[in-house]
Amino acid sequence: MAIRNNDAVIVGVGQTEISKQSGRSELQLAAEASLLALNDAGIAPEDVDGMITYTIDNNDEVGLCRCLGVKDLKYTVRVPQGGGGSVVTIFQAMAAVKSGVADVVLIWRAMNERSQYRFGRPVPAGRIPVGGGSTFMEWAMPFGAQSPGSWEALVAQAYMKKYGVTNADFGMVSVLLRKHAATNPAAWFYKKPITIDDHQNSRWIAAPVLRLLDCCQESDGGVAIVVTRMDRARDLKQKPVKIHGAVHTMLPNHEIITNYYHSQDLTRAALSETVTKRLKKTARIAPAETQVAMIYDNFTPQIFTQLEGFGYCKRGEAKDYIAGGNLELYGKSPLSPNGGHIGEGYIHGMNLISEGVRQARGTAVNQVKNVETVFLGSGVSGAIIGVV
Amino acid sequence: MAIRNNDAVIVGVGQTEISKQSGRSELQLAAEASLLALNDAGIAPEDVDGMITYTIDNNDEVGLCRCLGVKDLKYTVRVPQGGGGSVVTIFQAMAAVKSGVADVVLIWRAMNERSQYRFGRPVPAGRIPVGGGSTFMEWAMPFGAQSPGSWEALVAQAYMKKYGVTNADFGMVSVLLRKHAATNPAAWFYKKPITIDDHQNSRWIAAPVLRLLDCCQESDGGVAIVVTRMDRARDLKQKPVKIHGAVHTMLPNHEIITNYYHSQDLTRAALSETVTKRLKKTARIAPAETQVAMIYDNFTPQIFTQLEGFGYCKRGEAKDYIAGGNLELYGKSPLSPNGGHIGEGYIHGMNLISEGVRQARGTAVNQVKNVETVFLGSGVSGAIIGVV
Repeated sequence: MAIRNNDAVIVGVGQTEISKQSGRSELQLAAEASLLALNDAGIAPEDVDGMITYTIDNNDEVGLCRCLGVKDLKYTVRVPQGGGGSVVTIFQAMAAVKSGVADVVLIWRAMNERSQYRFGRPVPAGRIPVGGGSTFMEWAMPFGAQSPGSWEALVAQAYMKKYGVTNADFGMVSVLLRKHAATNPAAWFYKKPITIDDHQNSRWIAAPVLRLLDCCQESDGGVAIVVTRMDRARDLKQKPVKIHGAVHTMLPNHEIITNYYHSQDLTRAALSETVTKRLKKTARIAPAETQVAMIYDNFTPQIFTQLEGFGYCKRGEAKDYIAGGNLELYGKSPLSPNGGHIGEGYIHGMNLISEGVRQARGTAVNQVKNVETVFLGSGVSGAIIGVV
Repeated sequence: MAIRNNDAVIVGVGQTEISKQSGRSELQLAAEASLLALNDAGIAPEDVDGMITYTIDNNDEVGLCRCLGVKDLKYTVRVPQGGGGSVVTIFQAMAAVKSGVADVVLIWRAMNERSQYRFGRPVPAGRIPVGGGSTFMEWAMPFGAQSPGSWEALVAQAYMKKYGVTNADFGMVSVLLRKHAATNPAAWFYKKPITIDDHQNSRWIAAPVLRLLDCCQESDGGVAIVVTRMDRARDLKQKPVKIHGAVHTMLPNHEIITNYYHSQDLTRAALSETVTKRLKKTARIAPAETQVAMIYDNFTPQIFTQLEGFGYCKRGEAKDYIAGGNLELYGKSPLSPNGGHIGEGYIHGMNLISEGVRQARGTAVNQVKNVETVFLGSGVSGAIIGVV
């Protein structure tokens, strides 16, 4: 694969501890994760000239620059659509570096979503921030669909009915991810695997679709990623992880989670299908051809539909694909070896990206063997990364 | 000047009427401005694959796509820092097009800031949106500095004292911009020029710095801009306006309007100085070498400090520079021939960009003669554009 000087590469990752009560501000979490990532890369804070975060991250760029000692920022944007857009940060960093408008881009996401505001709670109509899905959610809210869990359950129920999938089938994902987390000291559920009985005995959140153990955690913590150019990366501390391709997509009337109003079959992850098509074109690698699948797991059914949308299996076949052991560490497409959001913690997609980088480097705790490329997938966005 | 296929060019501008009560939603204003811009370019809505707006624009991307009939969006970001970052939209569009991640980028900003929420009113502490200056404003608010006018007056007072500038001096800017607006049918103050006496008789907003006529308007309206690649632009309806260079900057502890805590002299527009330096390097043209100056006029003193920061004159010399007639339509550096925010209306920087494009094309109502290049400047960001 050709390597160019202006190829975008990931050179640093940083992650605070993941907890239910960080005991410090979201700004401090962002700063700590950023310093860890910069130190991992071997880049001084004053060399950062680009910044990317989510529209709904509560930290201000000027404030974070002040904490870190960033001297001269040339580029800063925010990406919409919350965690569904988490891999969009990688896409944007790639565009910034390739176009030459920034050399060292710091991506961050930090939140006290457990101790400070309970991210999974019902949201009052009219209080959804712009870029966070403000159009369609408000059409569902007057009918009582007010929390991420209830939005997800409505969509997933159609999938269950069409393909004869049960809540116990969804439980396979929880059991798998908790197994991965059990051997990851950074995971909230370290040494705490569950059985399918534990899953089936957990309380309903939105019957008959989601039990407590189908939902990702609410977590406090911060993650940061550093992206730069290939020629800047050569003499840094880590093996550069190249972004082979990264894409973002938005189709007519598609929305995050409250995906009720578009014209496609509701059981189909049409956005992920588009991501897959584009990645094949730009990265020349399909998600299923990679050795590690870091796929966004806010709720277990999302793994089913994304596996199909990202081309790991045909529509309706996710249940069998998972049951066949393909997502195990020794399987064909190991899923989130860190335990994902369900097992490690939920830093809104970003701790899946940091794990993907560790897997590409070969330095993860639950390291998959012979990793050449890793797929990062979050609903509307995806990237293929790998050491070159 | 060399022209490359992937050069970013502005090919369409659209602008609704500017009013004090639009009588329709902000989403409709965004859609109308977008359709006007796309029609101006001769590009169908389904060809749009990129979108950029402000973090604080209230319209959602999915909703706007739905209104316009955008089929397949590949890129969407939001830029922070409100109107100070208005030219950042051009900078980001340039990066998107040059890096190849999007081909047709639609920029929009639409607001009912007069009829729906009075943009200039005091803001309660804790209610500043992230990316909208949330760090430092909250340090000033407990002391009563709660509105854009009060923030600006604190900074401008230091400038007045240092250089012996009076409020009547600031009035020169209002008189000039109202003169320009008086011959622009699209301006709210069309056919309504003022004298310096009118200015001096208008009520104090923040004595002894700002009178009513030193403040930009609160306006309802929408503006949209279409950016694409040079090779895509050749067979479109308009002469392509090339973005020769565009930059964004954020210096330590610098903040929009509440610019009190950085280490430089408060009377100095250090951010604009940095913009100027970078533009000279990337565009190889300095702001003062262009034929039209579209400079952000939220308050009259901002024109003084930005003229100095952008290199039109030396520090402390803005008063004489303006008094010398340099900003007149026949002068050396005509300022906002549409009347700017003070005369035409305040669509948060975006109606200065659309006028800049018209000036570059040679199609403006108050057309400056022999325009080769135009400077777009908004505090932390700047661009040099021109027909090639």
